[in-house]
Amino acid sequence: MIRKLQVGVSGLGRMGARHALHFLERTPRAELVAAFDPDPKAVAWAQQRLAPYGTKIYTDFEEFLKHPGLEAVVVAGITTQHAAQTIRAIESEKHVLCEKPLSTSLAICEDVLRVARTKPHLKVLCGFSRRFDASYRDAATRIQNGDIGRPSILRSQTCDKHRNDDYFVQYAKFSGGIFVDANIHDIDLALWYFGQDSIVKSVTAVGINARLADLKKYGDVDNGIAVVEFYGNKIAYFYSSRMMAAGQTDTTEIIGTHGKIVVNGNPQNNLVELHEGNGIRREVPQTYYDRFEHAFVTESNEFTEAVLDDKALPFGLQGAIQAVRIGGAMTKSLRTGRKIEFNEIGEEVGQEVKARL
Amino acid sequence: MIRKLQVGVSGLGRMGARHALHFLERTPRAELVAAFDPDPKAVAWAQQRLAPYGTKIYTDFEEFLKHPGLEAVVVAGITTQHAAQTIRAIESEKHVLCEKPLSTSLAICEDVLRVARTKPHLKVLCGFSRRFDASYRDAATRIQNGDIGRPSILRSQTCDKHRNDDYFVQYAKFSGGIFVDANIHDIDLALWYFGQDSIVKSVTAVGINARLADLKKYGDVDNGIAVVEFYGNKIAYFYSSRMMAAGQTDTTEIIGTHGKIVVNGNPQNNLVELHEGNGIRREVPQTYYDRFEHAFVTESNEFTEAVLDDKALPFGLQGAIQAVRIGGAMTKSLRTGRKIEFNEIGEEVGQEVKARL
Amino acid sequence: MIRKLQVGVSGLGRMGARHALHFLERTPRAELVAAFDPDPKAVAWAQQRLAPYGTKIYTDFEEFLKHPGLEAVVVAGITTQHAAQTIRAIESEKHVLCEKPLSTSLAICEDVLRVARTKPHLKVLCGFSRRFDASYRDAATRIQNGDIGRPSILRSQTCDKHRNDDYFVQYAKFSGGIFVDANIHDIDLALWYFGQDSIVKSVTAVGINARLADLKKYGDVDNGIAVVEFYGNKIAYFYSSRMMAAGQTDTTEIIGTHGKIVVNGNPQNNLVELHEGNGIRREVPQTYYDRFEHAFVTESNEFTEAVLDDKALPFGLQGAIQAVRIGGAMTKSLRTGRKIEFNEIGEEVGQEVKARL
Amino acid sequence: MIRKLQVGVSGLGRMGARHALHFLERTPRAELVAAFDPDPKAVAWAQQRLAPYGTKIYTDFEEFLKHPGLEAVVVAGITTQHAAQTIRAIESEKHVLCEKPLSTSLAICEDVLRVARTKPHLKVLCGFSRRFDASYRDAATRIQNGDIGRPSILRSQTCDKHRNDDYFVQYAKFSGGIFVDANIHDIDLALWYFGQDSIVKSVTAVGINARLADLKKYGDVDNGIAVVEFYGNKIAYFYSSRMMAAGQTDTTEIIGTHGKIVVNGNPQNNLVELHEGNGIRREVPQTYYDRFEHAFVTESNEFTEAVLDDKALPFGLQGAIQAVRIGGAMTKSLRTGRKIEFNEIGEEVGQEVKARL
Repeated sequence: MIRKLQVGVSGLGRMGARHALHFLERTPRAELVAAFDPDPKAVAWAQQRLAPYGTKIYTDFEEFLKHPGLEAVVVAGITTQHAAQTIRAIESEKHVLCEKPLSTSLAICEDVLRVARTKPHLKVLCGFSRRFDASYRDAATRIQNGDIGRPSILRSQTCDKHRNDDYFVQYAKFSGGIFVDANIHDIDLALWYFGQDSIVKSVTAVGINARLADLKKYGDVDNGIAVVEFYGNKIAYFYSSRMMAAGQTDTTEIIGTHGKIVVNGNPQNNLVELHEGNGIRREVPQTYYDRFEHAFVTESNEFTEAVLDDKALPFGLQGAIQAVRIGGAMTKSLRTGRKIEFNEIGEEVGQEVKARL
Repeated sequence: MIRKLQVGVSGLGRMGARHALHFLERTPRAELVAAFDPDPKAVAWAQQRLAPYGTKIYTDFEEFLKHPGLEAVVVAGITTQHAAQTIRAIESEKHVLCEKPLSTSLAICEDVLRVARTKPHLKVLCGFSRRFDASYRDAATRIQNGDIGRPSILRSQTCDKHRNDDYFVQYAKFSGGIFVDANIHDIDLALWYFGQDSIVKSVTAVGINARLADLKKYGDVDNGIAVVEFYGNKIAYFYSSRMMAAGQTDTTEIIGTHGKIVVNGNPQNNLVELHEGNGIRREVPQTYYDRFEHAFVTESNEFTEAVLDDKALPFGLQGAIQAVRIGGAMTKSLRTGRKIEFNEIGEEVGQEVKARL
Repeated sequence: MIRKLQVGVSGLGRMGARHALHFLERTPRAELVAAFDPDPKAVAWAQQRLAPYGTKIYTDFEEFLKHPGLEAVVVAGITTQHAAQTIRAIESEKHVLCEKPLSTSLAICEDVLRVARTKPHLKVLCGFSRRFDASYRDAATRIQNGDIGRPSILRSQTCDKHRNDDYFVQYAKFSGGIFVDANIHDIDLALWYFGQDSIVKSVTAVGINARLADLKKYGDVDNGIAVVEFYGNKIAYFYSSRMMAAGQTDTTEIIGTHGKIVVNGNPQNNLVELHEGNGIRREVPQTYYDRFEHAFVTESNEFTEAVLDDKALPFGLQGAIQAVRIGGAMTKSLRTGRKIEFNEIGEEVGQEVKARL
Repeated sequence: MIRKLQVGVSGLGRMGARHALHFLERTPRAELVAAFDPDPKAVAWAQQRLAPYGTKIYTDFEEFLKHPGLEAVVVAGITTQHAAQTIRAIESEKHVLCEKPLSTSLAICEDVLRVARTKPHLKVLCGFSRRFDASYRDAATRIQNGDIGRPSILRSQTCDKHRNDDYFVQYAKFSGGIFVDANIHDIDLALWYFGQDSIVKSVTAVGINARLADLKKYGDVDNGIAVVEFYGNKIAYFYSSRMMAAGQTDTTEIIGTHGKIVVNGNPQNNLVELHEGNGIRREVPQTYYDRFEHAFVTESNEFTEAVLDDKALPFGLQGAIQAVRIGGAMTKSLRTGRKIEFNEIGEEVGQEVKARL
């Protein structure tokens, strides 16, 4: 009989519950044996939805880690717990799939990396969902084939649909700001397509509060634009927003010396077009998950396969940390109004130097 | 100084007024010297809009034809006058640009052709506007280049936006029916792309009255579908409608053995897309003229050029008549419920046999 | 613990193998306990790919049916076996998901229906995959909501990519012809959107052999067009082809009195667009399965759910048979060159008269 | 008889020749009475193409200005002559349509403005062609109607097709750099849609030389990105390029608090789509003129109408100068590597102040 990876999910909030179901129902080579969440509401859901399949529900993280036979842990709870849980899981000899970001703090990210390096036999994956999306992968293959020449300019945006409630304001308390929360994906794409070892030369970010004035309390904006220069003649520029009217509109363009690839230039929910009295209309995905559901499922399956077959993960932890580092520089640029510059070994150029300019 | 073609327009209704303005303002090598319409309203318009540029306005067609120096006539009044005026103009030694159709009667069309052949030095053009449209021409060039192999299947539709008034019902009195009025363009495209000398093998047409029950009085329908087999392994199929919600949607596909060309698969009014709360929307042209305005202007200019430089017209009168013939067979098929068949020399077959049914 | 439906798949050819994998890996509430195929190659594949998960492999259909605990059978082998196996499975008290068509013979289809009616407690589903496609379902919901008024005209096509081998010719031996094989899906859509109880008034079909002359041996064509009138002012028209250059292009339009819905008007493989020296390009699905993979998986899951929870299937067997009936009339029209007519109770009319022609 | 504006065109290079033809053939209310160019090749062209219509050809600018009855001058020669000729024409009591930019020097632009203000009865228009484009105007109307709420973010790009010759390098000698040459249009759009009196808060620009290393000699880049903050919570960001593979791709998005408008999100040359072995392809305009030809013709006509009927021009000279100012700040930011900041009355914040940060 086939061996199935024994997986546990920590955190059964919106994304955690989805991860649990992906491993429960859509990852043939995995078995969801355990789930952890201290919240009674989450536990109730899990008792009804997961337990009938044999998944054991825990309200204590350390107990959860001790679940007999548990091999891999999905860390999917609140962002502020990501790093600590990932570290504990690694220490407990578990493979880890951690939702992005590892942490909004670069120092903490580096702690995780340090711990992970002590256990090179364990697979530790930071869940950049777009890395598993068929269209982004198609783009990557073409770029690697040289179809567009040398990638030179990247434009990428992560734009959420406007919400009438205060979700985004509440969320801003711990999200790390729009650049670290939303554009982190776009930064990761830049590193993927430009080369994982690309070195940042400068970061400039600006933003506004167009609809959500309360975000200011947390130093956050509802629309942000950032430009990142890389050494070696490469520039990425980014847009993020919390106020799209139509829905989730995450578009990426990679412009090479000999061609351009666009991913999701025309967002669409499905293949339906409506001819109505005022024109032709199509609907678009309403949420990030609507757009990337299949990518998340692929992520579950490939993480499982990497562990079971001891295959290399599609990308390393180091890159995830580099993305947080760039996102942090964007946030700093936004808040200080300054262009943040780096030397060729990646160190931020000091303020004294700038004062001399 | 440059010589300008001395042009007169007969009929200043909706399309006629447009033709007049095209020759007045958008045909550099032509001069609109005369215009004819018996209707006082049209005359008033012409006095205000055309006369200040020196155009002489007539209410008598024969007087109009005698306008000093008049070289070419645009016949653009009501359909039932097309043939008679065209014939008179030819007899008066004028070049003629006649709006389609020459006539809804095949016999009358053939009369025009006979007269035209007596004066081969005169240019007589039947205005199939799509022949002058940049996109349809691009398609023609590619087909002639062999880009899609041997053209085999053609799908084409002419679909008007629904109107809340009784325009289409009134119009049906003299339009010749939806197949002769609307699909005549599509039939002409089939002849263009399949070859002007294509021979029809069979015609089948059906239709319904979905919104305009009163069309029945005139043997007409508001939605029609027709299939035309040609000898030599070619089939064209057509759709026409008077009830499009969004606007004018005239789409054509030419399918060859090695590729396909689509013209106007995604109708659009301009290059604007609107992201709104319920999705992404674009508007579409509201009328036939909105879609083909530039084609009509090209038609004026090329007709002028053909006369002045004694160049061949882009297509002959014979083809226009063949289109009416096919459109008439569609109407007959619709009304009789029969498939109309033709032998390889283009004669309708089996009438006696069928008469027994 | 959750109860899982005990499923067996009969036939492990191209589609059968896919069905097997869908039930094995992508249908959480089902367990693939058995598989049948007499072909050693298929058996070898199954031993390697299915057996490790505990699926028992059979080479005898009757033995397969006797697999302990087997509850449901997927009939996915060659078309000519569909009906016989479905009937045997029903007789053995199994629920059945049968690939379309039940049979290319209307009489045999009716046999299946008769047997199925003797066991109303069993779920018998004919796999019209488009019924499970998210976009087609979205269209259905909108139509049922009245968004386009009264559905009046339906255009639908099923068009395969050209193949350089003789696959389609070989396939034609038992496929029942292009109308029954390919357009059967489109016919089913017409019945879905116009109403399952729609009564056919006439059927006219024509076709050509543009690239595959050898299809003629089997009375088949590589491009077919058919028009179906329904009583009650509804018309559906269809196109099918085996020679698309770009890939699978299955498009449907439903035109109502007050709006139009297009499904897959712009085929695309994913969300990538390529800007190249000669323009902007997107790729399209290469096969039917590429386009409808997710629909097949949904089918597996909903069939499973219907059986386990004793829910109604999304559509009945009767409709599948009506589709075969219409497809058969198309084929007859193609081969006889006649328009086939039906009276208001669905009987073909005028056969004697027509026979004299 | 109708009065026609007596127009002369100065400069018969690529764009000048087009302007001459637009006034000659496509501006019904204007008459091209004179043309000036010192270059023998241009003169030869004009003798052949313009003179037969009665246009007098000059090789001396002052003589040209004295052409009897000349009322309006189109300044369309090399950029470095724009301002001087415009000033001389104004001094000679001519209305002026000047190609953009007035000058790449802000001080010279202001000189023109000063002179123009001494003759308020003369119409002086700086030719921002996009202001006359139907799609951009449609966007403007919708924004003014409040359809997207408060415009907050604007993204706009002007991207030329790559050329294999050294045209862009030669051109860089006097173009003022990519931001002033190409993005000037996008800056103008930002001022149009955000409000002509918008005050810049900061400008940051970066760029690379991806294919045209020789541009460096002129302080220019072949790909530039700039971000412009405006006071009042508005941000515009821009991209310009000289290396597009497919053709001219000028796209603009205006994002408001309640909606988004995209202009030319899917560049296309016409309404033709090609289904080929490797997918579905459409071609795109190859040059700026291919995209904006109709806008240029509208410009000629509206300039003519404004003069003849003493109507207000669609936008003032002041805005053209503001655009040059912002373009200049971008170039400065690119060359210094600094973010350029402005106070609320539009003065650049001094370097000393920055040093204190």
